[in-house]
Amino acid sequence: MQKIVIPFLLASVACAPLRANPRGLTSAEVLAQAPDYDWEEIPAEDLLLADTPRGRIVIALVPEMAIHTVDNVRKLARAHFYDGLAFIRAQEDYVAQWGDADGTKPIVDAEKTVKAEFSRTPAGLQFYKLPEVDTYAPETGFIRGFPAARGHAEAWLVHCYGMVGVGRDEAADSGSGSELYMVIGHAPRHLDRNVTLIGRVVEGMEIISTLPRGTAEMGFYATPAERTPLERVRIVADLPESERPRYRTLRSDSSSFADLVESRRNRRDPWTKHPAGKVDVCNVPKATQRID
Amino acid sequence: MQKIVIPFLLASVACAPLRANPRGLTSAEVLAQAPDYDWEEIPAEDLLLADTPRGRIVIALVPEMAIHTVDNVRKLARAHFYDGLAFIRAQEDYVAQWGDADGTKPIVDAEKTVKAEFSRTPAGLQFYKLPEVDTYAPETGFIRGFPAARGHAEAWLVHCYGMVGVGRDEAADSGSGSELYMVIGHAPRHLDRNVTLIGRVVEGMEIISTLPRGTAEMGFYATPAERTPLERVRIVADLPESERPRYRTLRSDSSSFADLVESRRNRRDPWTKHPAGKVDVCNVPKATQRID
Repeated sequence: MQKIVIPFLLASVACAPLRANPRGLTSAEVLAQAPDYDWEEIPAEDLLLADTPRGRIVIALVPEMAIHTVDNVRKLARAHFYDGLAFIRAQEDYVAQWGDADGTKPIVDAEKTVKAEFSRTPAGLQFYKLPEVDTYAPETGFIRGFPAARGHAEAWLVHCYGMVGVGRDEAADSGSGSELYMVIGHAPRHLDRNVTLIGRVVEGMEIISTLPRGTAEMGFYATPAERTPLERVRIVADLPESERPRYRTLRSDSSSFADLVESRRNRRDPWTKHPAGKVDVCNVPKATQRID
Repeated sequence: MQKIVIPFLLASVACAPLRANPRGLTSAEVLAQAPDYDWEEIPAEDLLLADTPRGRIVIALVPEMAIHTVDNVRKLARAHFYDGLAFIRAQEDYVAQWGDADGTKPIVDAEKTVKAEFSRTPAGLQFYKLPEVDTYAPETGFIRGFPAARGHAEAWLVHCYGMVGVGRDEAADSGSGSELYMVIGHAPRHLDRNVTLIGRVVEGMEIISTLPRGTAEMGFYATPAERTPLERVRIVADLPESERPRYRTLRSDSSSFADLVESRRNRRDPWTKHPAGKVDVCNVPKATQRID
């Protein structure tokens, strides 16, 4: 580790998000050293688990940002709507998407459409604000560890790598959660506030990102054989307690989270010759990990 | 296409980068409609072609941004240094890298190290400047269609998806081009000015992005069997003329390039409810295509 000499006075007045990583920790070290009280367990009701022949995918849902859509996704999972569907699309440097290839599977015990939840009022949301300017939004930061943005009268989740959104037709209110897509390339921030984002992949992202790219328009698979099936999709709360995978996320109001941001903003290792001094909201390492 | 009514006066005074996509073209339409004189052929000397069992990869080199390193990469290719090496690393949401797994292959007829070319003087470079603010750099834009940034006294290529850089050890001057990495996730802009970038993948990116992720530290493959070999790596100028693939890039001083930027900045289709009004340098679609 490179030694950084910080004069006592400067160190004592520096505040969290701007303290220039004085301890020189890497992101991995910050996560490994974060005390238990800096973590928050993700409720089992907010974990969507998808089994595929390529492995297991786990998505953390963020109900406070899309309460009706998340609720409908739970209903769809519980009605076994997703079981037997497949990844039908993987578009290079953009998104992969699962859904009903033929669009004929009936939706039972869930809504067929849900009102758009592209953004919500910021009132009552704890927002960890980054000091950096952002190309797209007045402010960016984190809501419970999930990348987000905020304007004068609204807040919204943003399209970082691994974020999960709801496919829809032309009408804003035409999505239901029956088709979900995951970002597999550079953050397509132009989609922000155009789709309802419901969460982020917390495990199995490498399964999704390495899906063969579809050769038809928009990355759809040209033939059914190319699709990767969804064997079973469940809400973790519905599993027997002994089978439930548990996940936790670093609280964005913790000092460890500030350290995590700073570890990416200013890498303090001998390899790094020009610490960036800045970090964009999609470049902060994911702060979620499996418990046990 | 959504119809946008532009009052005559407004349309007549609007200038290129801020004209809000009045014709409502998609990126694909801009590229399809761009006249021949808006394109520039990439010299065969600046095309690096790698054959793998998974298909062909083509990298466009940008010698004006890293003249010594690009020159050494050409020498390495011509000395057949890369032939028989392999992709030895694929780290999720970060980079894939090819190189000599054992580090024992002798470098012959090329330099073993090349001075760092992390940035250069902006003098004499044609720079298409984006008006948007950027989190990391004072200015961002394009140099001959390649994503770049500029400060008071220097210009540099930036780490967008698909960009190609030179692996190095701790010392800034320790890279040679013998190990090359490609960005396969969200733009790791904190690497800007910490490594020499030499170009961008213009074909076969989906081969690289879907490489199985390595399970050892930093995404290195734990076993040799996981590696994807490089069968042959050549400079296109060295192929018989009839076998040379040809590529062209949209000139960043063309009105088509301004249209391309604008097509992403303000998508004008009925699906898009909130055109972003902004675009970041890594979100402008790649403006390179194969000729023929």
